[in-house]
Amino acid sequence: MKVGGESWDQPPSVPLRRMLSPRQSNSGHPGAPMGMAPVAHVLWNKILNYNPKDSKWIARDRFVLSNGHACALQYILLHLAGFKLSLDDLKNFRQLDSITPGHPEVGVTDGIEVTTGPLGQGIANAVGLAIAEAHMAATFNKEGYTLFDNKTYVFLGDGCLQEGVASEAASLAGHLQLGNLVAIYDDNSITIDGDTAVSFTEDVEARFRSYGWEVLHVQGGDSDLDAIYGAIAEARDNNTKPTIINLKTTIGFGSLKQGGHDVHGAPLKADDIRQLKTKFGFNPDESFVIPADVDASYADKAAKGEKAQAEWNALFAKYQQAYPAEAAELTRRVEGRLPEGWEKHLPTFKPGEPAVASRKLSENILNAIAPHIPELVGGSADLTGSNLTRWKGAVDFQPPSTGLGDYSGRYFRFGVREHGMTAICNGIAAYGGLIPFGATFLNFVSYAAGAVRLSALSHFRVLNIATHDSIGLGEDGPTHQPVETAAWLRALPNLQFWRPADGNETSASYQVALSSLHTPSVFALSRQNLPQLEGSSIEKAAKGGYVLEEAEGADVTIASTGSEVSIVVESAKILREQGLKVRVVSLPCWEIFDAQPREYQLAVLPSGAPIVSVEAYGTLGWAKYAHEHIGLKAWGASAPYLQVYDKFGLTGPKIAANVEKVVAFYKKRGSPTFSPLDTAL
Amino acid sequence: MKVGGESWDQPPSVPLRRMLSPRQSNSGHPGAPMGMAPVAHVLWNKILNYNPKDSKWIARDRFVLSNGHACALQYILLHLAGFKLSLDDLKNFRQLDSITPGHPEVGVTDGIEVTTGPLGQGIANAVGLAIAEAHMAATFNKEGYTLFDNKTYVFLGDGCLQEGVASEAASLAGHLQLGNLVAIYDDNSITIDGDTAVSFTEDVEARFRSYGWEVLHVQGGDSDLDAIYGAIAEARDNNTKPTIINLKTTIGFGSLKQGGHDVHGAPLKADDIRQLKTKFGFNPDESFVIPADVDASYADKAAKGEKAQAEWNALFAKYQQAYPAEAAELTRRVEGRLPEGWEKHLPTFKPGEPAVASRKLSENILNAIAPHIPELVGGSADLTGSNLTRWKGAVDFQPPSTGLGDYSGRYFRFGVREHGMTAICNGIAAYGGLIPFGATFLNFVSYAAGAVRLSALSHFRVLNIATHDSIGLGEDGPTHQPVETAAWLRALPNLQFWRPADGNETSASYQVALSSLHTPSVFALSRQNLPQLEGSSIEKAAKGGYVLEEAEGADVTIASTGSEVSIVVESAKILREQGLKVRVVSLPCWEIFDAQPREYQLAVLPSGAPIVSVEAYGTLGWAKYAHEHIGLKAWGASAPYLQVYDKFGLTGPKIAANVEKVVAFYKKRGSPTFSPLDTAL
Repeated sequence: MKVGGESWDQPPSVPLRRMLSPRQSNSGHPGAPMGMAPVAHVLWNKILNYNPKDSKWIARDRFVLSNGHACALQYILLHLAGFKLSLDDLKNFRQLDSITPGHPEVGVTDGIEVTTGPLGQGIANAVGLAIAEAHMAATFNKEGYTLFDNKTYVFLGDGCLQEGVASEAASLAGHLQLGNLVAIYDDNSITIDGDTAVSFTEDVEARFRSYGWEVLHVQGGDSDLDAIYGAIAEARDNNTKPTIINLKTTIGFGSLKQGGHDVHGAPLKADDIRQLKTKFGFNPDESFVIPADVDASYADKAAKGEKAQAEWNALFAKYQQAYPAEAAELTRRVEGRLPEGWEKHLPTFKPGEPAVASRKLSENILNAIAPHIPELVGGSADLTGSNLTRWKGAVDFQPPSTGLGDYSGRYFRFGVREHGMTAICNGIAAYGGLIPFGATFLNFVSYAAGAVRLSALSHFRVLNIATHDSIGLGEDGPTHQPVETAAWLRALPNLQFWRPADGNETSASYQVALSSLHTPSVFALSRQNLPQLEGSSIEKAAKGGYVLEEAEGADVTIASTGSEVSIVVESAKILREQGLKVRVVSLPCWEIFDAQPREYQLAVLPSGAPIVSVEAYGTLGWAKYAHEHIGLKAWGASAPYLQVYDKFGLTGPKIAANVEKVVAFYKKRGSPTFSPLDTAL
Repeated sequence: MKVGGESWDQPPSVPLRRMLSPRQSNSGHPGAPMGMAPVAHVLWNKILNYNPKDSKWIARDRFVLSNGHACALQYILLHLAGFKLSLDDLKNFRQLDSITPGHPEVGVTDGIEVTTGPLGQGIANAVGLAIAEAHMAATFNKEGYTLFDNKTYVFLGDGCLQEGVASEAASLAGHLQLGNLVAIYDDNSITIDGDTAVSFTEDVEARFRSYGWEVLHVQGGDSDLDAIYGAIAEARDNNTKPTIINLKTTIGFGSLKQGGHDVHGAPLKADDIRQLKTKFGFNPDESFVIPADVDASYADKAAKGEKAQAEWNALFAKYQQAYPAEAAELTRRVEGRLPEGWEKHLPTFKPGEPAVASRKLSENILNAIAPHIPELVGGSADLTGSNLTRWKGAVDFQPPSTGLGDYSGRYFRFGVREHGMTAICNGIAAYGGLIPFGATFLNFVSYAAGAVRLSALSHFRVLNIATHDSIGLGEDGPTHQPVETAAWLRALPNLQFWRPADGNETSASYQVALSSLHTPSVFALSRQNLPQLEGSSIEKAAKGGYVLEEAEGADVTIASTGSEVSIVVESAKILREQGLKVRVVSLPCWEIFDAQPREYQLAVLPSGAPIVSVEAYGTLGWAKYAHEHIGLKAWGASAPYLQVYDKFGLTGPKIAANVEKVVAFYKKRGSPTFSPLDTAL
């Protein structure tokens, strides 16, 4: 058999299919891995440019398995290709603490680029990976020095195509003319509910053409290796548009259940595996055995990849001579080091300076740091003028033919596509050498929940600039006022939810978020102006929580965040006039505060007096820090924001009145009051 | 001027444009209302079938403003058409406690069908409204008695079309051949970021054709009223496919800033309003004045609507004679009354009966109640076999031509479209006479966050069946194990998040959720089997929280939910063997427990001993009930579920060991321990 001018060692699906029924774990999804084995083999054995000895080589081709439930396929490919994934790892598929979990996780398994499984994410990540490549190429390539020209290949199934996040990302990819992106659609007409005819009868090819994609079609996805190779090669060589290859396959090809939906997510039975092995010419009594010629074929491919990287390294060595500044810059960025002294450009503020909305403070920060952190790239989901995310002198990332910018541009116009935006940012972060941010209203970060979760699980430094925080946005009303969003983001592991109270705290948010290499952040920023606080500093806020106003022998501590801190300061003044001793604590980031030593935490929120929380959100979550809560009982309201604050009791006098009740209640109780942080576990 | 055979009283845009610059509030979005005034007038003055005296008439046409920021337009139409919305209400646009908030909210304003503003939701709601009409027609219409044949009209802009939720819903609408759905796309080429050329260059018409929609095109959306009328009439009369009309308009038409993005979201200046009024033949010194002929024209339309409803009522009166059972059933459903005695069909369980997964318990409940609650309709986002949501004898809701079901079918195949599914359920709930449910894994309820939030804000009884709860799903791993989702759903106002522990609690979940007419619910259901508890009952669980195991002079209370309750029972047994007095509390629904009298709450979670929470999620939120927390510190893991539980310390012995530490800690402290619920505020 000859494909693309090269001879195949043997029917390519055999070694893969052999391994693909994840019988050992008696769990998993055999259908898609078996159906996509031929195209996977063609791609990985003949086309994909990788060096298994260095899975982080920046110029490698990227591979994304958007239908992540098919990860048995990917793990087998990584094993065959020589990545750090042994036969034992394959045998431990879906077992405790293995490197072969039920869905691919970046950081867990060598050679996995992004975390997939939640459908639609992988294709959007792939768009981000392609954007990143285009940007790095436009930024660093020079005449005679093509450092960046890798492709991103993504497998996806019917499930991914039905997800809105995939639609959003695909539409933007078409607009951006990402010729370095190749999607391979496993068109097997089967989903969990049965035939796609029950719910998915759209014309996928026409849809992708409407987005501006090139569409190729391979009828014989089960066996026509020549056609598969030809299509991928054609897609690879089309540099003007993203390409989707519609590959007709049979789910679970070779199984007795092939073509049916019950082969999607349930392991094959023993007799089916026997006949399958026999059918493909293997000894049915053997498992996890790879023929020597298959090993040799992949070893040959690995050697080619190693050689490719060596050539690239040589080219880069010459580049270092010719363009030392650019080379040093690229090295720094790929190593993940921020520019020396960048944080000196963060603005600081003194009390008495003008009140400024924290979205505007954020804009000032971007203006200050963007010139010094060239790897910072990002944009807004069509709210640029509201999010204030476009720094002075920014150039749009656009296809040059549009006349609106070029690929070296660092500012993205994501369109009204929040979920796609965040998933794309995950892909950009995965590429390396870039720090992406996305922006929308805080309320619509929820639209991107699926992708925000994966930023955190994937340990990607993605910044989410979320303006129009809470009821302070005023007239837009309850549909736009997030009262529940903070609880969700605070509950998400490995995510920093920042709600800064003034200029210094906003600078601290950026400082910590940018310095946290493996953690995403959300900045909840106000539409309304916030005064510069007495007692705030970048250093203090960078601890996530600190004492803004101290008092010996306090009667009460009031803890707050963001736009309510200055109101609490006002209420504390009223209470002091009434003879009470009041401490005020600002807690801009719980994730960071929780990481401080317990002694520090207890110094900020000590036992001995009641602690009252004040925040213009629902109160869920605050009981871990405070005994009593002032916040929203339900939804916000549409009105000028000061009226909304007043309606919900969030004014200095109204807060003071409630705090008085709290103090009286605990005095009457007469027992010692312990900090909620003073716990046994 | 003549349109559709009727003469127009005057250029239709005048009375509307007159009102449309929401200057009074000095806030709002003038651009889209001004651009869409002509089509709005054509639709509301000539086509839409409504009776302003009865905004709840079940057979009315539905109108959805998916670009809800243009609600000034909708409020003005409601006023002109004679709904309960006065000139003063218009003057109070975006003011505190007005019925004209910044975005339309169902329940707040007479004549508003669904809550819109968050982009993409309205078009998906409209798909749900159209599904509901098709289902009601197929269920109740008889030869000679066309009770249901209304249309759903939806306005939407570029923003909605870019949102993934709109793509999902539109694809499904095409599959379902919803000929009763008419979308009117305000193609003004402007979004907040400027020209759509910066991010949205797809071929929208080709995309909708790929979904199976009919596409019409009107070039002169600013002024060609004949063409607008003709297109809407053609779309209305096409009963085989949904139709989208691509209407070319000029944003802010008439303003000095027309055609630019700065007219989108900022109020017009005074001089601009003057020239605008003058241009359209009005006295620039007058505001909020409606010419008598305009009033008369809309009064005439209202009279037609009143007559239409009277005719419908007469038809229904005859229907009552001919089909008394169906008529009584329809009346009951439209009035929102559940069938008498439906709850008697809920299964009950006794200790010792077999352990069953709560997803399977849910299936048993659906099998038991679906025949008795014919208004219960729903389905899964392509996880039917995993969610176990298809009851025995269910018929699929499908176009009859597919041969897969018909429109009287009550089971939906939503496809892998979680966000679209939930937004569609909101539309179905909005229609009336139906109780919709959607199903997916709990982890992917997050994909639908934007729509879940609007279920709650809109007071829609939408049931979300969310199986594969937490780490109990085992091998699928962290990508699929929701550890943060419960905190978000518990923080959402007016939403019941149920996590039942056994059969009786699962029945209680359904009982309360179905009986809560104005509140959505999420059922977090286990993949793994759960034993039937000693001490549980529907009645107790229906309070949201209750004492499962009581103990006089207790040393500790352990509070838990769902799959961990039986493990806590095991740990309590171990602790009792060590001489400790242990209370066990089950809290299946916080929203409902929080609504109980404070005395009851304090009886369940009393002062006097420490309270420990145990749940296989992150612990955020639990401090409102408990002093100490046993849960997940971060993500789950991919492995057989019992190993995952063990890894995270969630076994009887490991919990017991931690509870021992807690008891010792509080004994050592020596001070009284107060319930976190014993508070001042």
